[in-house]
Amino acid sequence: MTDTTSNQMWGGRFAAGPDAIMEAINASIGFDKRMAAQDIAGSRAHAAMLAATGVISDSDATVIREGLLTVLSEIEAGTFAYSNALEDIHMNVEARLKEIIGAPAGRLHTGRSRNDQVATDFKLWVRDQLDAAETGLLALIRALLAQAEAGAAWVMPGFTHLQTAQPVTWGHHMMAYVEMFGRDLSRVRDARVRMNECPLGAAALAGTSFAIDREMTAEALAFDRPAANSLDAVSDRDFALEFLGAASISAMHLSRMAEELVIWSSAQFRFVTLSDRFSTGSSIMPQKKNPDAAELIRAKVGRIFGANTALMMVMKGLPLAYSKDMQEDKEQVFDAADNWMLALAAMEGMVRDMNANRDSLAAAAGSGFSTATDLADWLVRVLGLPFRDAHHITGSLVAVAEQRGCDLPELGLSDMQAVHPDITKDVFGVLGVENSVNSRISYGGTAPSQVRAQIERWKAKL
Amino acid sequence: MTDTTSNQMWGGRFAAGPDAIMEAINASIGFDKRMAAQDIAGSRAHAAMLAATGVISDSDATVIREGLLTVLSEIEAGTFAYSNALEDIHMNVEARLKEIIGAPAGRLHTGRSRNDQVATDFKLWVRDQLDAAETGLLALIRALLAQAEAGAAWVMPGFTHLQTAQPVTWGHHMMAYVEMFGRDLSRVRDARVRMNECPLGAAALAGTSFAIDREMTAEALAFDRPAANSLDAVSDRDFALEFLGAASISAMHLSRMAEELVIWSSAQFRFVTLSDRFSTGSSIMPQKKNPDAAELIRAKVGRIFGANTALMMVMKGLPLAYSKDMQEDKEQVFDAADNWMLALAAMEGMVRDMNANRDSLAAAAGSGFSTATDLADWLVRVLGLPFRDAHHITGSLVAVAEQRGCDLPELGLSDMQAVHPDITKDVFGVLGVENSVNSRISYGGTAPSQVRAQIERWKAKL
Amino acid sequence: MTDTTSNQMWGGRFAAGPDAIMEAINASIGFDKRMAAQDIAGSRAHAAMLAATGVISDSDATVIREGLLTVLSEIEAGTFAYSNALEDIHMNVEARLKEIIGAPAGRLHTGRSRNDQVATDFKLWVRDQLDAAETGLLALIRALLAQAEAGAAWVMPGFTHLQTAQPVTWGHHMMAYVEMFGRDLSRVRDARVRMNECPLGAAALAGTSFAIDREMTAEALAFDRPAANSLDAVSDRDFALEFLGAASISAMHLSRMAEELVIWSSAQFRFVTLSDRFSTGSSIMPQKKNPDAAELIRAKVGRIFGANTALMMVMKGLPLAYSKDMQEDKEQVFDAADNWMLALAAMEGMVRDMNANRDSLAAAAGSGFSTATDLADWLVRVLGLPFRDAHHITGSLVAVAEQRGCDLPELGLSDMQAVHPDITKDVFGVLGVENSVNSRISYGGTAPSQVRAQIERWKAKL
Amino acid sequence: MTDTTSNQMWGGRFAAGPDAIMEAINASIGFDKRMAAQDIAGSRAHAAMLAATGVISDSDATVIREGLLTVLSEIEAGTFAYSNALEDIHMNVEARLKEIIGAPAGRLHTGRSRNDQVATDFKLWVRDQLDAAETGLLALIRALLAQAEAGAAWVMPGFTHLQTAQPVTWGHHMMAYVEMFGRDLSRVRDARVRMNECPLGAAALAGTSFAIDREMTAEALAFDRPAANSLDAVSDRDFALEFLGAASISAMHLSRMAEELVIWSSAQFRFVTLSDRFSTGSSIMPQKKNPDAAELIRAKVGRIFGANTALMMVMKGLPLAYSKDMQEDKEQVFDAADNWMLALAAMEGMVRDMNANRDSLAAAAGSGFSTATDLADWLVRVLGLPFRDAHHITGSLVAVAEQRGCDLPELGLSDMQAVHPDITKDVFGVLGVENSVNSRISYGGTAPSQVRAQIERWKAKL
Repeated sequence: MTDTTSNQMWGGRFAAGPDAIMEAINASIGFDKRMAAQDIAGSRAHAAMLAATGVISDSDATVIREGLLTVLSEIEAGTFAYSNALEDIHMNVEARLKEIIGAPAGRLHTGRSRNDQVATDFKLWVRDQLDAAETGLLALIRALLAQAEAGAAWVMPGFTHLQTAQPVTWGHHMMAYVEMFGRDLSRVRDARVRMNECPLGAAALAGTSFAIDREMTAEALAFDRPAANSLDAVSDRDFALEFLGAASISAMHLSRMAEELVIWSSAQFRFVTLSDRFSTGSSIMPQKKNPDAAELIRAKVGRIFGANTALMMVMKGLPLAYSKDMQEDKEQVFDAADNWMLALAAMEGMVRDMNANRDSLAAAAGSGFSTATDLADWLVRVLGLPFRDAHHITGSLVAVAEQRGCDLPELGLSDMQAVHPDITKDVFGVLGVENSVNSRISYGGTAPSQVRAQIERWKAKL
Repeated sequence: MTDTTSNQMWGGRFAAGPDAIMEAINASIGFDKRMAAQDIAGSRAHAAMLAATGVISDSDATVIREGLLTVLSEIEAGTFAYSNALEDIHMNVEARLKEIIGAPAGRLHTGRSRNDQVATDFKLWVRDQLDAAETGLLALIRALLAQAEAGAAWVMPGFTHLQTAQPVTWGHHMMAYVEMFGRDLSRVRDARVRMNECPLGAAALAGTSFAIDREMTAEALAFDRPAANSLDAVSDRDFALEFLGAASISAMHLSRMAEELVIWSSAQFRFVTLSDRFSTGSSIMPQKKNPDAAELIRAKVGRIFGANTALMMVMKGLPLAYSKDMQEDKEQVFDAADNWMLALAAMEGMVRDMNANRDSLAAAAGSGFSTATDLADWLVRVLGLPFRDAHHITGSLVAVAEQRGCDLPELGLSDMQAVHPDITKDVFGVLGVENSVNSRISYGGTAPSQVRAQIERWKAKL
Repeated sequence: MTDTTSNQMWGGRFAAGPDAIMEAINASIGFDKRMAAQDIAGSRAHAAMLAATGVISDSDATVIREGLLTVLSEIEAGTFAYSNALEDIHMNVEARLKEIIGAPAGRLHTGRSRNDQVATDFKLWVRDQLDAAETGLLALIRALLAQAEAGAAWVMPGFTHLQTAQPVTWGHHMMAYVEMFGRDLSRVRDARVRMNECPLGAAALAGTSFAIDREMTAEALAFDRPAANSLDAVSDRDFALEFLGAASISAMHLSRMAEELVIWSSAQFRFVTLSDRFSTGSSIMPQKKNPDAAELIRAKVGRIFGANTALMMVMKGLPLAYSKDMQEDKEQVFDAADNWMLALAAMEGMVRDMNANRDSLAAAAGSGFSTATDLADWLVRVLGLPFRDAHHITGSLVAVAEQRGCDLPELGLSDMQAVHPDITKDVFGVLGVENSVNSRISYGGTAPSQVRAQIERWKAKL
Repeated sequence: MTDTTSNQMWGGRFAAGPDAIMEAINASIGFDKRMAAQDIAGSRAHAAMLAATGVISDSDATVIREGLLTVLSEIEAGTFAYSNALEDIHMNVEARLKEIIGAPAGRLHTGRSRNDQVATDFKLWVRDQLDAAETGLLALIRALLAQAEAGAAWVMPGFTHLQTAQPVTWGHHMMAYVEMFGRDLSRVRDARVRMNECPLGAAALAGTSFAIDREMTAEALAFDRPAANSLDAVSDRDFALEFLGAASISAMHLSRMAEELVIWSSAQFRFVTLSDRFSTGSSIMPQKKNPDAAELIRAKVGRIFGANTALMMVMKGLPLAYSKDMQEDKEQVFDAADNWMLALAAMEGMVRDMNANRDSLAAAAGSGFSTATDLADWLVRVLGLPFRDAHHITGSLVAVAEQRGCDLPELGLSDMQAVHPDITKDVFGVLGVENSVNSRISYGGTAPSQVRAQIERWKAKL
């Protein structure tokens, strides 16, 4: 590429060229080259439409469209020489096109502007990432379903406040994350539908007097329709913010699961063993096997929500239509998308590889008076006590057991009857962990039968 | 209300009572009393279901349901004595119910927990706010449509970078905001559908062994279905985060419009006159008429996105199921909802009352070489120049005009021909502002005909 | 208070009064009444100065100053009738003053404006909170020092990645938090020095033509000097942002400690027992004792950093000087300050009350090959191996022990020598936990002697 | 570099190697290579200390220190082959060192760990950026002082709410930003002092049993002292957060000034002309000269505060000591530092090059009843009216003038006297803009004499 600069392209009235600082702050080619394929696809659709509507000749359109393919192949081959002086991917592509095909290149920018061009490119890029997120979420959900299916009946402690609450099943716990990532999937799909309107042809901000056909370019680029207001089309970044919002919530879900994996991998819990593939060692402590992948996944929510914060703050208070502030949109979305996809893939790998330590889980499930609620429920169901009274009696029995240093099933019937005389030996039937989880058959409950029903529902949905 | 405290309710095994600091950090009644109506609706549905499934007697259910109505009427009348010691709205209501109806009150909490109860209450509250947001957005859209209809053909400068770019129409500018708030509406509706699953009956985290009917309570509370995983149901706050995300983007839109109103109200722009109803004066400068409402609206995006940040950070890395951290959810959502609704209402009022200064708009529309693009397009269309060449020639003509201190239509034909000899006097036809906007008839463009078409489309949709 | 409204105060040129929505969005009295004492102190200093410089008469000043004390006493007694129509605390106080003292009240607002008045009031309020934070941090540091002193030599596992890394001492762990809260203290003190410049007398934005003495009011209000630029003085909110920034980092420290307390309280860790005073029970699970205070403290960083986000976003892009957007500053700071102080106090109480379970800590300290680094260091020190080789050999020995299901000290010498023949029985001396921690005598290391030295250093500093 | 991988370095006990996803999420060499110089400086200081304390031989230390210089020269020459498999800069440097000097390289990592090494490197990097920020802020302040000095007496409108409030001087307005950036400077210096404690020798988390001299390495690296607690030293990222906090506030100041430049450059304001060097054109609108640099600077606060948000969220709730989450710290700080420095430099350039349009400023200064406060003050000072009455009378006169379509000085004396009979013709003396600004001689006021005094104060300080 020669010394053509974008300043030469739009700089007719400028006396002085931008200096080094200006170039550093202004040029976007360092990052927006990631949208090269989208840019070329958009330009090719635009050229075809300009010919179809008679704005340019068919032969010009053909030369332009073929020339753009040449540019694309150079980019894909890594032989394209990006120029900082040409500012952005749009100018870089167009300048190279001119070198290849000469004069007709100058007709491509008819009836459009960089403002609608960049909005179109960026929407196409984000749309691809929504599709990638769907793929990543589906793979993770499938990995979770596999874990859930294997361990639908494995008992483990259910926690609230990280205190043993009631026994649950491994499958039930895995399925809780299926629900979360399932909502992420739903959000991704809604966002894709909402954003799928094409800005191309909005031109700088006002539309154009050329007789363009926006339906045609929208269709060629697989948009559902053209965007309905040209001012809005060039100054809208909702699609990027909604992407970041959906990514942030999903990353928060990943952070919760990652936190659990870190805690579960500790020597004190030993609930799971992560594979060596997703662990690392220490440069100083030879015995360490660290859950690095889980920790890095946990951290990604910060990075992704940081990007959301950045773009929200950038957009705050911007008057219409396009302002250059909006150039700060892409790096945030690129980085968030990369890290979301990476975190989804890493979590999928970890889930696929991890081993639940069934014995540790079972042992922990039965400790900590985890079936106290079952005892209280028995008092309600069998003795007909109001729940509040049953709760109080159970609390007293827990206090007795704690004092003795034993668990509830190890109390004698006489201990029980000392607190409430009507208790019978039948009560011991509900104090076992297996009985406890099997009894939770309310819809969405932890009973293996319920868990398996939910697994089947999800399999049918996918 | 007597000295019954929640510590007495669940504190069977505790020796010491929580002290003042603990009460201050722990009690939520100060804010969650806003969910009183939701809490009572949920409890009434739960009681009816417990009777229908035979868990409690019909007569108990009747007494409970009537007692709850009594509590509600006390709350609505302002005679209810909230107790900090009873921690939260759930305990306050139940304790008062017990005072009113005695023993049967103790049977209400069968087959549920505070964890699913609070999730249900909060979802009902948020759902109401989504409905309120829909109402507020629709009212604002209607106010914008009225402005657009009145001024579909009024010319004004279209800006990019706050520099005059091309003439647009007032109606077109108003309709850009209709698109934005229309997307907000769409997000609100999607969020409502996604969140409309009922947590009630998830109990503490594992479901329950009582033979409850979650479909029945879900239906009674107008949910689409019960939530499918009890662990997820009590630890999910996606609905709150999605509400805050939608509110944040909407508030960002409001901030952009508010910024424009502030700038447009300045002595230098004078594009609009805001009504006295939405302006204030100064304690020291007697001449001031300040666009306070616009400035306050502009600021709300900070407050609302701050709430989004707060809750995202709270949820980051929380292990399942319920953790007390999640009690920090409500104040953020309450405050964001209040301020979103207020900002929508204030903006609607301002839009309804404001007067566009047509003369100032028209004068500004014609200055700043605003039809330079029309000139370039003419060179392309009539002389058949490539757009890039036309752009360069127009730049030269702008430089000439700038030097002369005149605008483009005031240049002579000979000036024009000195830059490009083929220019004819026909060119002056496209340099007028009215001609310019009338020519932008591409779909979504600024031509009055296009603007009116979009207004009709929106009216049909609403 | 009568029907005087602030509209009557500044509304000479307004035809219509603000309506209900405007009042709702505009009035700040609902929250800025918290600055009543600061407002009155500022007005009293201002009146005294106006008299000293001859702008008003001594008798007027005396009447004003006494009248303001009367207003303050009404506010403190709870008999003051706040009026929403009077918008803010400044107007409320002045209107009441006029009722009490009549005409001279009208002379108080000479040479100042609400802009410098509110900046002064708010700075005084924030300064008080910086002092409160200092008190709270010092109390927490003292509680941590007491824990550190008691357990300077108690061994516990030191974690990285929540995996056992090397044994450390309880005192050392407590002192890590002393360092963190010590930096918080340092940040608070720096912020106080930087913000201690008085805005009063900056007037609306330009200073005043009255011959006021800003040094005098600055001194009376214990500021170090008057702010040096009147435009900046009324539009600066750095002091609020720096307060929120310092609070956020401090709250992050609290969240880390809270996370540890939650994990350490779990049945799986049992490292600490929290007092009943800072724990709560469950409405459904009678056995639960939940670390609610720790969880709530952990969550506060979200709320406080949310406030920081909110105000940063509000201030973004505001032109000089005062804009009404800035009215959104106070609620954020009030809420963050309240919650920071509450979290500091709650953490202090928890630290003071908590019991380290020495046996659990000691047992955990010795497991998980925690002295592997000591073994590697011994190979370096005694056998002269390069550290990287020693690390590799130790890794092999850990693998052998893991295979045997034993810990390092339980391996036989022959097992050791099978991996490296030069190992002697002296190696067993470094494999004990007590020896390990006692050996870490590098400055700042975990050896009890080092911990005690740091405790003494801190005691001397406080 | 050969196929040595970091897995080989610490992987003695691992069966499987990390796969591609793990490498992608885990490796930091892609970004932490920016700390190469800091890493090598730290290692050289460490080696010298190990020799001085006898832990390694002098000859080993010499070989290591020279070898590290060779590595540095390779990095600076761009011939160093970074390996992703070696994870990070520390491993990359050490592996290359081993290739160059062989066995002694293995002794370098004695008495330290990657945890203290990375903390040291990162602190050194951040410290350099604090110094760079100081340089950038000083240059910007000097540029502002030059503008202030030139225009100390140029009148312009002072705004509140973007409404004309009172006349101020250009110099005064520039000096408001000097105050802001001056506070930024003060924050930078405080942060540098607070963070200047050396983590090196904290080792993994517990200190070391080698007889190292941490004072010596601290001094060699120009730290004030070693960090006092090894657990804290490896898990502290306050210095990064405080850097981001200071950068965020500074970027907010930049955003305010940038907003003003954008507004002032509009055709409606024409207060300043930005140089072509910091403006750009349009690809479609030939006449445009856009304030791109100002807009990009305005946006940077989003990006920088986004980084602050990201790292705050990452650090939230992390248990001690090091967790891998903390690896997310560097990219945020690198990006924020680059953009802060760039924005400071760009703003300095813009300020240096920009021309104030004195005529536009002066014309605007006198319009909009800008001297109404002067009139009110005259009524107080000369007629002895209470300020509130004077305010009301002035409001009435403004209303009369507005009705007439004239400004205050154009009213006749009889008009004045119709509102208050005691007004004399002397009042016209205070209604001129020059008189107005000259009268604001209160400390920090807008009078040229005050502005010049502040300029001198700042020059003396710098």
